[in-house]
Amino acid sequence: MLNVSIIGASGYSGAELAKLIASHPNFNLKGCYVSQQSLDKGKLLSDLYPEHSGLLDLELLPLCNESYVQIAQSSDYVCLCTDHKVSVELAPKFLDLGVKVFDLSGGFRLASASQYEQYYGFSHNHQTLLDSAAYGLVEWNKANIAKAKLVAVAGCYPTAALNALKPLKQSGLLADSQIIINAVSGVTGAGRKAAINTQFCEVSLAPYGLFNHRHGPEITQYLDHPILFTPHLGNFSRGILETIYVRLADNVTENDVTQAYQTLADEPLIRLKGRVLPSIKSVAGTPYVDIGWQQQGQQLIVVVAIDNLLKGAAGQALQCMNIASGFNATLGLKD
Amino acid sequence: MLNVSIIGASGYSGAELAKLIASHPNFNLKGCYVSQQSLDKGKLLSDLYPEHSGLLDLELLPLCNESYVQIAQSSDYVCLCTDHKVSVELAPKFLDLGVKVFDLSGGFRLASASQYEQYYGFSHNHQTLLDSAAYGLVEWNKANIAKAKLVAVAGCYPTAALNALKPLKQSGLLADSQIIINAVSGVTGAGRKAAINTQFCEVSLAPYGLFNHRHGPEITQYLDHPILFTPHLGNFSRGILETIYVRLADNVTENDVTQAYQTLADEPLIRLKGRVLPSIKSVAGTPYVDIGWQQQGQQLIVVVAIDNLLKGAAGQALQCMNIASGFNATLGLKD
Amino acid sequence: MLNVSIIGASGYSGAELAKLIASHPNFNLKGCYVSQQSLDKGKLLSDLYPEHSGLLDLELLPLCNESYVQIAQSSDYVCLCTDHKVSVELAPKFLDLGVKVFDLSGGFRLASASQYEQYYGFSHNHQTLLDSAAYGLVEWNKANIAKAKLVAVAGCYPTAALNALKPLKQSGLLADSQIIINAVSGVTGAGRKAAINTQFCEVSLAPYGLFNHRHGPEITQYLDHPILFTPHLGNFSRGILETIYVRLADNVTENDVTQAYQTLADEPLIRLKGRVLPSIKSVAGTPYVDIGWQQQGQQLIVVVAIDNLLKGAAGQALQCMNIASGFNATLGLKD
Amino acid sequence: MLNVSIIGASGYSGAELAKLIASHPNFNLKGCYVSQQSLDKGKLLSDLYPEHSGLLDLELLPLCNESYVQIAQSSDYVCLCTDHKVSVELAPKFLDLGVKVFDLSGGFRLASASQYEQYYGFSHNHQTLLDSAAYGLVEWNKANIAKAKLVAVAGCYPTAALNALKPLKQSGLLADSQIIINAVSGVTGAGRKAAINTQFCEVSLAPYGLFNHRHGPEITQYLDHPILFTPHLGNFSRGILETIYVRLADNVTENDVTQAYQTLADEPLIRLKGRVLPSIKSVAGTPYVDIGWQQQGQQLIVVVAIDNLLKGAAGQALQCMNIASGFNATLGLKD
Repeated sequence: MLNVSIIGASGYSGAELAKLIASHPNFNLKGCYVSQQSLDKGKLLSDLYPEHSGLLDLELLPLCNESYVQIAQSSDYVCLCTDHKVSVELAPKFLDLGVKVFDLSGGFRLASASQYEQYYGFSHNHQTLLDSAAYGLVEWNKANIAKAKLVAVAGCYPTAALNALKPLKQSGLLADSQIIINAVSGVTGAGRKAAINTQFCEVSLAPYGLFNHRHGPEITQYLDHPILFTPHLGNFSRGILETIYVRLADNVTENDVTQAYQTLADEPLIRLKGRVLPSIKSVAGTPYVDIGWQQQGQQLIVVVAIDNLLKGAAGQALQCMNIASGFNATLGLKD
Repeated sequence: MLNVSIIGASGYSGAELAKLIASHPNFNLKGCYVSQQSLDKGKLLSDLYPEHSGLLDLELLPLCNESYVQIAQSSDYVCLCTDHKVSVELAPKFLDLGVKVFDLSGGFRLASASQYEQYYGFSHNHQTLLDSAAYGLVEWNKANIAKAKLVAVAGCYPTAALNALKPLKQSGLLADSQIIINAVSGVTGAGRKAAINTQFCEVSLAPYGLFNHRHGPEITQYLDHPILFTPHLGNFSRGILETIYVRLADNVTENDVTQAYQTLADEPLIRLKGRVLPSIKSVAGTPYVDIGWQQQGQQLIVVVAIDNLLKGAAGQALQCMNIASGFNATLGLKD
Repeated sequence: MLNVSIIGASGYSGAELAKLIASHPNFNLKGCYVSQQSLDKGKLLSDLYPEHSGLLDLELLPLCNESYVQIAQSSDYVCLCTDHKVSVELAPKFLDLGVKVFDLSGGFRLASASQYEQYYGFSHNHQTLLDSAAYGLVEWNKANIAKAKLVAVAGCYPTAALNALKPLKQSGLLADSQIIINAVSGVTGAGRKAAINTQFCEVSLAPYGLFNHRHGPEITQYLDHPILFTPHLGNFSRGILETIYVRLADNVTENDVTQAYQTLADEPLIRLKGRVLPSIKSVAGTPYVDIGWQQQGQQLIVVVAIDNLLKGAAGQALQCMNIASGFNATLGLKD
Repeated sequence: MLNVSIIGASGYSGAELAKLIASHPNFNLKGCYVSQQSLDKGKLLSDLYPEHSGLLDLELLPLCNESYVQIAQSSDYVCLCTDHKVSVELAPKFLDLGVKVFDLSGGFRLASASQYEQYYGFSHNHQTLLDSAAYGLVEWNKANIAKAKLVAVAGCYPTAALNALKPLKQSGLLADSQIIINAVSGVTGAGRKAAINTQFCEVSLAPYGLFNHRHGPEITQYLDHPILFTPHLGNFSRGILETIYVRLADNVTENDVTQAYQTLADEPLIRLKGRVLPSIKSVAGTPYVDIGWQQQGQQLIVVVAIDNLLKGAAGQALQCMNIASGFNATLGLKD
């Protein structure tokens, strides 16, 4: 059994990951940490998530200066389910203490520190870590994930978009023009916090973050193609649906597109649906990426859906940890 | 035109009342105030409620010491859509300045100051006002509402329960035993504030406040009968549904029950549905109280539904103001 | 008072229109008809819509051969809230009997009968009526609506899209390239019928009708510009949100765009929100079209929202009837 | 591996059971049958439930006269996820062919054929089977379930109510008076069929079946105590919440109640929450029964919640099959 500690375990991604690890045959959930200010002393993780009562009856622990050495000594892996700024601060500490780090935030996903100034609004002083971190998009980066000390688990929106688009890009089917990604995410994507805009009575389908969402440059970087990414908040808890408008290069046929997607056919968490289009319901609560597409002339519409907390966060983090451990990538996710 | 100012206009009840007043033929929405700490300077009420853009483009004003005289001088009526503690503090000030007060909180609904210690957890030092306040349950207290300087608009749960039960009580149809009121409210009932338990992803049908909800004594007091009141939070925005279990006195017939409800037949906002049972959908967004019932022997089940923000708060406040002004009670509520 | 009869009154649009007419100061709801097979004898419209109990307690009447003359003689206007095939059959009958017809279906919206073969799958034998029908998109066609015998009230999706795009087109701001319209509609848009895909447990955000939805050619025709229209079903009852991706012509500035939208500034049901983007919540239950937009270089994103049953159906039909009657276009819709 | 066939596999309970069996280490999903009239030839179960794509890619087969022998020969167990009338017809056929039957309908839950006339409205001609059937309420009837040829899996509402009340009854803590059970079920409880009242836009919290729901006599029979059972339909897909009003016998203390519930402490799917009250969210998607309670004098309120498709149907059926097979009762349900 490998020991895993989670920092930021009380959030939606953290709790989902705690559940996956606690149910995993080869991982042991060693400790669940939260920041001292958000600690409600003596609370169990299952007090916050009563649906996991019995499984997650672990006391939430405060993360303090004394914690680092103790966590590092008792854990094989540390998972950061923290804000990107916190992750950027914590990852080097744990790496220095010799423990492998799986970061679910955006703190180590972009290639260059200078991009953090622009898109995340802070100075990132760890270019070396950005260089050495493996991007945790499982289907496309297994070798690096297997050997990296720091894995930057892919963002939720990019996981959907990149799995939908990279097969086309790699097969040279894309025209040069900009791809439009119209995306809708469930409210868990906004995190578990007391905020007005995610109150029950305030949530309603609406766009946000036009032209400047942080997942835009993440997609561009790993796709190497111009995109326009527009996220929306939808009135459901879990799931992401992206409707993607693609111009195909001249003479690309329906068969070419099908062939391109066939390159993903052996990936255990990719479900290729052909002309049948996915919905939020078809993926919520599952570890899968569902991809459907329809074409008319050189216009292709790809529809891709994932559960934002599973394939979009905790599920993919678990895949990365499985890979790093030499286990089957879907162990504990899919029978 | 009568001028009306609203304190606490940014909450759900406050905004609903602002909308009703702004659309009313004889009332003028004079000012919308919020506490200084919650003020977002320069914000319009319609910035918070874009659905009312065009109608509620008034700037939210801070309530400060200088405001009282100015409000009193410029307003015929002041509506308090504030927490009960704030209402208990503000009502005497406005009454001293000679303006009529309509309080939507629980601050003046109970008969005795000592009950506030028990149920609301604070010392209420205004027994005289409790004595003189008119209970704003329109169907049962018009004369007092018409002449009172302070109207304590009835609570949302009690408005439904009392209209469902008082006809039976007044007609002497109730057995002595305790009545059970199983109630479910929409999330607007919890107010507009950043809180974890009313986050979109956290809301789920669940009971709360067993044995000690503040609306219990309010119902008991105006019904003069033992009740057990159990509220639940439901996963919808607006509406209250109460399923009420009543033991009838010996020999009470179905016809007796129908006769009892007929005493409400002329009330314009009461819809007597007979054996057809109401739902949340049948009242949400309407000013009505829908009452249905079915009987088996001496067991009666009454189902009553209202919109918690309309008949349960702002709509009934408007009725009280109409009555106080000598207008038709439903003016501006129902054509 | 003008008498109005509604055919297909039991559907969502029909009932919404019945409510508007029954509340209107100058219209009288003369009769509510349904097809004989869907008639539940003796049912009131308010039995199906208990929220309108008191207002819509009219018996639903069967539409049969004997009905036409009687309806025509007793009504100034007939509103068809029927399937497009039924509308195409009924409209000529009522027109021949001398009564003005407002059709809420797609039966008379396209310019040429041949398009019906392609997009609606049936032979349309009334090219003359297609030629003479006024397209009921209020903001853009008042003069024709005022004098037409047959008004083809605009479709829900086109009403949103055309109001969002025609100002740009008319001002010459559009690049030649295809505009992408990503649209999401509430479930009332699918009509009131027993179907599996609109069951409570089956609804989930999902695209449908790619490349061939009937509202595509309707938008193209009245915009005179290439578009790609992709509708989705969303998990909410009412409302449409369209996120529209537009390439602007070279050198078009933010100010040019603002100027273009200013041409709609005096339209009473258009709310120009500038950089503030609308949501479903901001329009559901309202008669408005909310339009917001943001620009980056020559890329413009316009977000437009309407209530599909009001501005998208019954509300706009009422506007058309107001205009045909010489009344203020928003009478009965907005105070 | 034991082979299991499911009749009525396309409904919500049937599909949930298919998923559990297909994922089970010791059961093999042999065949999924639907009635010939509801068969859409060539459809896979995962076409109806795309969330289970990959797991449930079995073709739905028509149930016809030739099927019985073939099913019986190839299956160790047959699960009936059919309407009670169909179950009453099918169960004897399969029993005669020597295969064990697990019936998820109400067809064999009541003790006497005469009750079926009264509560189900048809003549039940299999009193012998009613006598020999084991009631599939796992926590209370394991020995009979283990050896029965026909298991009548307990109803969803009774599973919750009986687990909440039998501990009190068995410990002699109940006063003689009637217990009131106010229950709310998610919409999957109404089955997967095209119906108006379960359309997305029609569902709203509302009571139904007052005084005569079929689960009333089922609870009474196995509790042996008078109850008043009032179900409601709630606006959520999965889950049942019951708020139960109990009068305790004189002098019963809080400790007595706690002791009574402790008799369930070792049951693996019962989660005793004490004063913490369950919600729909705490059980939806889980196999558990959550029970919380609060007491004031002799008034006890018990709140119990289950997932109606799991512990309330397919999950409990699987438990029964595990028990009948000598496996751990929660195998395949809980790790």
